[in-house]
Amino acid sequence: MGLKVYADRMSQPSRAIIIFCKMNRIDFEEVRIDISKGQHRTPEFEKINPMKQVPAIVDGKFKLFESHAILRYLACFFPSVSDHWYPNDLTSRAKIDSILDWHHANLRRGAMTYVFNSALAPALGFPLNAQAAEEGKKLLSSSISKIKSFWLKGNSRFLLGNAQPSIADLSLVCELMQLEVVDSEERQRILEPHQEIRDWMENVKRATNPHFLEVHGILYKVKARLESRRNRVSPKL
Amino acid sequence: MGLKVYADRMSQPSRAIIIFCKMNRIDFEEVRIDISKGQHRTPEFEKINPMKQVPAIVDGKFKLFESHAILRYLACFFPSVSDHWYPNDLTSRAKIDSILDWHHANLRRGAMTYVFNSALAPALGFPLNAQAAEEGKKLLSSSISKIKSFWLKGNSRFLLGNAQPSIADLSLVCELMQLEVVDSEERQRILEPHQEIRDWMENVKRATNPHFLEVHGILYKVKARLESRRNRVSPKL
Repeated sequence: MGLKVYADRMSQPSRAIIIFCKMNRIDFEEVRIDISKGQHRTPEFEKINPMKQVPAIVDGKFKLFESHAILRYLACFFPSVSDHWYPNDLTSRAKIDSILDWHHANLRRGAMTYVFNSALAPALGFPLNAQAAEEGKKLLSSSISKIKSFWLKGNSRFLLGNAQPSIADLSLVCELMQLEVVDSEERQRILEPHQEIRDWMENVKRATNPHFLEVHGILYKVKARLESRRNRVSPKL
Repeated sequence: MGLKVYADRMSQPSRAIIIFCKMNRIDFEEVRIDISKGQHRTPEFEKINPMKQVPAIVDGKFKLFESHAILRYLACFFPSVSDHWYPNDLTSRAKIDSILDWHHANLRRGAMTYVFNSALAPALGFPLNAQAAEEGKKLLSSSISKIKSFWLKGNSRFLLGNAQPSIADLSLVCELMQLEVVDSEERQRILEPHQEIRDWMENVKRATNPHFLEVHGILYKVKARLESRRNRVSPKL
């Protein structure tokens, strides 16, 4: 009974877990839970995660949900994981925890609210909502500015001036990658003023490839589908 | 240069940190940052926490913000802290991390949105907002139900069936205590159907007294002030 990762690659935190496992040669079975088909709400999945969300893991009798808790656990449990992902040193670890905790009510909430309400809602049976999207974009943009001015100060390769990525880099960049599915001009307007953020995203991509690109494959497919739909609805003149 | 805790006792996570330090005989200096006077937005405090939020700690040259990261750090750093607060055992610790991570987008967001928009906003220069309060209350109530049915299953004394409190018990109960300042009939309507939740809050109180009551003193004062104002505005017939 090995490690099972219940995931939907359209979910940012799911992708972070899968990339982390692949990067660290952790043996695991990926069990796909298709959110668009409501598979996270079945009685079977509720036994895995009563909160009905992906990702979740099962390792023998041990079950765990919440992606940051999973990343911390995997980093500590598997000896093959390099220290830079979640350092043993107490103060370095605390700084990473601080970013991971900050993430929830800031970058995650902003990006999720914006992307859902401006692009993904119809695929999940909800209408688009311009006002909610606007509120999300505001929080997203202020979160991006804070990451840049505080954790990437001096244009460092990774957060906190680190030379190698941590689980915080992986979690936050997977979140930002979700912007691939929104209108491309809008995406550019959000990221364009922030060269440091775009460099950092590239650094995390390069440090975790080929897994990063492979795991994000589905996102590019959805992006292409949504773009072709947008062009049909409002053709460029 | 000892440990400094920058806190406003009107903030739930600030109270959790202070109670934790007192319970574990951690020597610290409490530096009051009065949010209602905007002291969290001064250039001096921005040097402590660039995110302009309490709580934050400084220990020599080491600075840290985000209450859960602080609780984890203090629990690991100080040998006087008993293991039950944040166990060394990897799977027990991961389960506590899972609750702490879940908290942000659920109980915390629901309670904060509800309490702010139904009671505290005017004191901070904002109008009350009935619609936002209603949305917050909905998330708060569903979060309470989830805590009860999942983490307090079998009416256990503390979360996860534990015999002693963890940092997750402390953080979540300090959040729920904020309901003291909303209309008392409303508060009763929210908590009344959940005997297990009320028992658990009592257990955390008892396990951390006299500190729990002392640190929550300001909340009872604000409660009394808001109640007298409510009675003046709409006197009971």
